[in-house]
Amino acid sequence: MRAVDIIMKKRNGSSLTKEELAYIIQGYVAGDIPEYQISALLMAIFFNGMSFEETAALTELMLQSGDVIHLDGIEGPFVDKHSTGGVGDKLSLILAPMVAACGVRVPMMSGRALGHTGGTLDKLESITGYRTQLDEATFRKIIQSCGFAMTGQTEKIVPADKKLYALRDVTATVESIPLITASILSKKVAEGADALVFDVKSGPGAFMKTIEDAERLANSLVKTGKTMGKKIVGVITDMTEPLGRKVGNFFEVEESIDCLKGTGPQDVMDITYRLGGWMLVLGGKARTVEEGIDQCKTAIKSGKAWDLFIKNIELQGGDSADMMKKYGNYRAPLVKKLKAPKSGFIASIDAYKIGLAGVYIGVGRNKTTDSVHPDVGFIFDKVKGDSVSSGDTIASVFAHSETALDAAWPLIEASLTIADQKPDHAPLIIKEITAL
Amino acid sequence: MRAVDIIMKKRNGSSLTKEELAYIIQGYVAGDIPEYQISALLMAIFFNGMSFEETAALTELMLQSGDVIHLDGIEGPFVDKHSTGGVGDKLSLILAPMVAACGVRVPMMSGRALGHTGGTLDKLESITGYRTQLDEATFRKIIQSCGFAMTGQTEKIVPADKKLYALRDVTATVESIPLITASILSKKVAEGADALVFDVKSGPGAFMKTIEDAERLANSLVKTGKTMGKKIVGVITDMTEPLGRKVGNFFEVEESIDCLKGTGPQDVMDITYRLGGWMLVLGGKARTVEEGIDQCKTAIKSGKAWDLFIKNIELQGGDSADMMKKYGNYRAPLVKKLKAPKSGFIASIDAYKIGLAGVYIGVGRNKTTDSVHPDVGFIFDKVKGDSVSSGDTIASVFAHSETALDAAWPLIEASLTIADQKPDHAPLIIKEITAL
Repeated sequence: MRAVDIIMKKRNGSSLTKEELAYIIQGYVAGDIPEYQISALLMAIFFNGMSFEETAALTELMLQSGDVIHLDGIEGPFVDKHSTGGVGDKLSLILAPMVAACGVRVPMMSGRALGHTGGTLDKLESITGYRTQLDEATFRKIIQSCGFAMTGQTEKIVPADKKLYALRDVTATVESIPLITASILSKKVAEGADALVFDVKSGPGAFMKTIEDAERLANSLVKTGKTMGKKIVGVITDMTEPLGRKVGNFFEVEESIDCLKGTGPQDVMDITYRLGGWMLVLGGKARTVEEGIDQCKTAIKSGKAWDLFIKNIELQGGDSADMMKKYGNYRAPLVKKLKAPKSGFIASIDAYKIGLAGVYIGVGRNKTTDSVHPDVGFIFDKVKGDSVSSGDTIASVFAHSETALDAAWPLIEASLTIADQKPDHAPLIIKEITAL
Repeated sequence: MRAVDIIMKKRNGSSLTKEELAYIIQGYVAGDIPEYQISALLMAIFFNGMSFEETAALTELMLQSGDVIHLDGIEGPFVDKHSTGGVGDKLSLILAPMVAACGVRVPMMSGRALGHTGGTLDKLESITGYRTQLDEATFRKIIQSCGFAMTGQTEKIVPADKKLYALRDVTATVESIPLITASILSKKVAEGADALVFDVKSGPGAFMKTIEDAERLANSLVKTGKTMGKKIVGVITDMTEPLGRKVGNFFEVEESIDCLKGTGPQDVMDITYRLGGWMLVLGGKARTVEEGIDQCKTAIKSGKAWDLFIKNIELQGGDSADMMKKYGNYRAPLVKKLKAPKSGFIASIDAYKIGLAGVYIGVGRNKTTDSVHPDVGFIFDKVKGDSVSSGDTIASVFAHSETALDAAWPLIEASLTIADQKPDHAPLIIKEITAL
């Protein structure tokens, strides 16, 4: 077998066999196939795509390149959720304890903020003491104790993806549905979930800017997962506006507390219940998504989800008392108000611009090596659809330096559109793709 | 400027600017841009193509990466011919003295056999003493003395092409019309020609297998050349059957001698006259290709072309008396006859299979480091359209070893098709593309 023949085959539009993909991935990880051949193949895949069978084979091979978490010995079912990333997306913090309270176990591996999108690990780490790098034994133990655990990926999980992603990033081959699918799916399957719910976000604040692209990705995740024998649901949700009222690391912990206590904003709860409902269906705890949603609502109302959240924080080394003491007070020293420049209705607050502005003030990061602040971010008094009078405060922005605020401000101002008419309601849950 | 942005721009179907191409080519040659980014860009170019302006800019940049031969001080006009490679294609050996005899000077840089196609340098080197690596001063002097000189490319001519070609070869990005165009054109312009005739071969024995592909390349060469201010004619010729009656290094020198003495086979002479006619038009020595053809015929008939051929051999260190002594006798010791397995008409002798068989017996080579034999090859007693009786000798194949003959024989046998009907005449000159 020669790499050049495999590249040519894909370039000419044919499907690659499992053996050919194995030759490529194993050879690449072992350092036997040079990066210039891999990047040419990636570009050929960008143009000619891959079948679900090819994508499944690629996913399996990537997954086999490293450690796989085994949850045997612990009682399941194990269902996880993955979001393609958005602004104000704190759903994992609410979903995991809520679903665990209903009897489905959630082995959750999360990522960090990058670019305009936030990261669950950064949010969790704004809780004093909370550890997000668990070894496998601890990860298992915490799942057994409170039904879910939240950790970051270790270096040993899917090393092929790390290598491939770094190469895709510098060769303009990131935006390929099968490559994105294999990257996401290999990591999620490696962490031990039996079934998965994907929150595929769509809109200016998402990785997938159009509904068509989001649907393509959701479909690829579901179909490729099915080929691999995994039960998967893809939920396409809108990411035009930031989710909820708070954007920022500890700020989103605060809003998660609200949600778990039953006082969260409706947009966040709507999506959380929907995703949670599906997780219960996949875990065999509910026959329909509606039945699952009802159980989730009960888990919130009863306080059971909240109790598991607090229990998890303690198990992962976090100080929940300190967290509650900081609630409402943990704010960076500088605050600047975004005021309505005229009266009318908020037609939109652009999630992408808010996400980018967040990088300047330290909610997120440009490079993986940048650090973030726990106590900076945005608190929105008004959101899309609200009526405002000229001069009303729309948002408070907290930061540690004037320079950061100054850099972020043009984006923050540009994020706001005020119109004379109340905007139409846009559905948050756009489409669901299942292959159960 | 970042390479990844340039790759993405091309990937998304946009045209690159001169500055962007310069950043890539100069960065690549300097070693500042890694091969994995270049190969991804090459694959994006494979899929999305390049405009003639982009191709011209790329050609200029490649050309500027190394030495350029300056022929100033010598009287022109300078017109060269380039063939995309075929089997039995000895046209350069005949064309150069013929056209020089008509007052157009030919600074010819040729290549070596590779794969199934032959190489002018290997043919010339079958003449004892003939030197094909001339320094610039000698190259100039010989052109002044006999109107043409034949040399190989030095390492210093278009180093960017050498680097790029090696990368394309292992990343399945060879078959891209703009990349082929820039590769061919940069080398030809670097050698100092004012105008060029391209013999773009089409058919099973050619690099371009279909007339459509050949036409695309010819068109690209002509239009890109025009953008660069060069006068170019592209002649698409058929390469289904081997050209002439002899295939092999010294064997083709012999057939060139026949042609220059006025006794060459008609197929070789038809194409040679046509290409020569265009070279005279481009050199301003003829108003029409027909007028040019007439002058070429006179140059052959008068013996002037032959005289210049002998003069060139002596100037380039070759022994023309030895060459004439070897004419008809310089044959490898083993000979095997291809016989007609049945009576009928020769419908085809597949040039590609003969070319591949030639690699086994040492006419050509698989790798650039392989050596070739001067005295091996094929002499065809019968060619397409001839009637044969069962058992008639169709070709004699000369080789140095039984092993080589055995390896080549299945291809040689498979090259032959005998039919009951006389095949239709297929035109040798398929199409001409000019932009004068």
